[in-house]
Amino acid sequence: MEKDSLLVLSGGMDSVTMLYKYIDRIALAVTFDYGSNHNAREAACAADICRRLGVEHLLIPLGFMGQYYKSALLSGADAIPDGSYAIDNIKLTVVPFRNGVMLAVACGLAESRGLKRVMLANHGGDHTVYPDCRPEFISAMSQAMETGTDTHVGIWAPFTSLTKGQIAAIGKELGIDYSLTYSCYKGGKVHCGTCATCIERREALLYAGIFDNTVYEKDMQ
Amino acid sequence: MEKDSLLVLSGGMDSVTMLYKYIDRIALAVTFDYGSNHNAREAACAADICRRLGVEHLLIPLGFMGQYYKSALLSGADAIPDGSYAIDNIKLTVVPFRNGVMLAVACGLAESRGLKRVMLANHGGDHTVYPDCRPEFISAMSQAMETGTDTHVGIWAPFTSLTKGQIAAIGKELGIDYSLTYSCYKGGKVHCGTCATCIERREALLYAGIFDNTVYEKDMQ
Repeated sequence: MEKDSLLVLSGGMDSVTMLYKYIDRIALAVTFDYGSNHNAREAACAADICRRLGVEHLLIPLGFMGQYYKSALLSGADAIPDGSYAIDNIKLTVVPFRNGVMLAVACGLAESRGLKRVMLANHGGDHTVYPDCRPEFISAMSQAMETGTDTHVGIWAPFTSLTKGQIAAIGKELGIDYSLTYSCYKGGKVHCGTCATCIERREALLYAGIFDNTVYEKDMQ
Repeated sequence: MEKDSLLVLSGGMDSVTMLYKYIDRIALAVTFDYGSNHNAREAACAADICRRLGVEHLLIPLGFMGQYYKSALLSGADAIPDGSYAIDNIKLTVVPFRNGVMLAVACGLAESRGLKRVMLANHGGDHTVYPDCRPEFISAMSQAMETGTDTHVGIWAPFTSLTKGQIAAIGKELGIDYSLTYSCYKGGKVHCGTCATCIERREALLYAGIFDNTVYEKDMQ
């Protein structure tokens, strides 16, 4: 199998699962540090996993997002609401056009390296609230990238229609140790267990029948 | 007229003309420093012109492009070929998906500020060689941005079908002093007069009947 793809790797469950599943296609994994509360911890997980798997890894700072973009995700842990992914809750954590920026940067890098595709681990659960996770966006952005590059770099997003639980089930089959990944939007040393991403993480692991060995702050109290 | 737009302003002739022509629509001008030879000089021109016109201006560093992207434009003045915009010459100066990255970053910033449109001064002369200047790309990228944002931020690129000479003619009518702008791809203190952008600059000013008071190194020898 030709290693012709670049993976956008956050260090969370979804993109780590994609890395394990399609490792024979992935020439390069790229993590973006856009200044969110949880970015540094996710990025450390991403770097660690790439080292273990022998995959080349780049960390690209996008400091302007933290500086100029408006989002609770960029405003410290106290700005992150507790509770599940209800629309009003999660809307606060939208970082405007985050996937658009990451895909565009990854696209130029892929063309520079002669790689054909950018892989993104957006999934079904993201669709309702984040416009830049929906299939229509992925398709339109892929079209823009193919048109805007000489080598017609496209997007490959094979998890678009899966739920996070189904992704965890793939990970179970592959024997992924999810304690190597990080999810919490509050960005603490320990997962809070109460923000929307922590709740989603727990539910996905439960759905897949994976023993959840994540330490949650909530359970320590 | 509502100030509902963000302008991608390089500090070259085209985007400066767009700033003057549509100033009553422009709430914010953004210059990107992507580490090219000529970026610092262009950016200084952009900041200076915004100060003169009282337009808010941001300079956003995209250092990863200079670090990881492949292009003669990012490799020092000696890598820039002399001579006009012949395909082989100018292909060397393509920065992979540069407009895609700048538009994506500008899109997220526009949504953060409640602005409706991102303006880009791509023009007819760019089309042949740079895929991310062609009308098909602008249209596909606008579609991606509209789909990927809650507020449906779009692209407005009113110079897409104009030549650089026609843009200079608009500038002449508006009384723009083009000595405030910078074009040379070699990035020297003085325009070289021999690279493709310098040749294009001279031709455009000549076409528009503007006295070219640019100091060209070529003429000093």
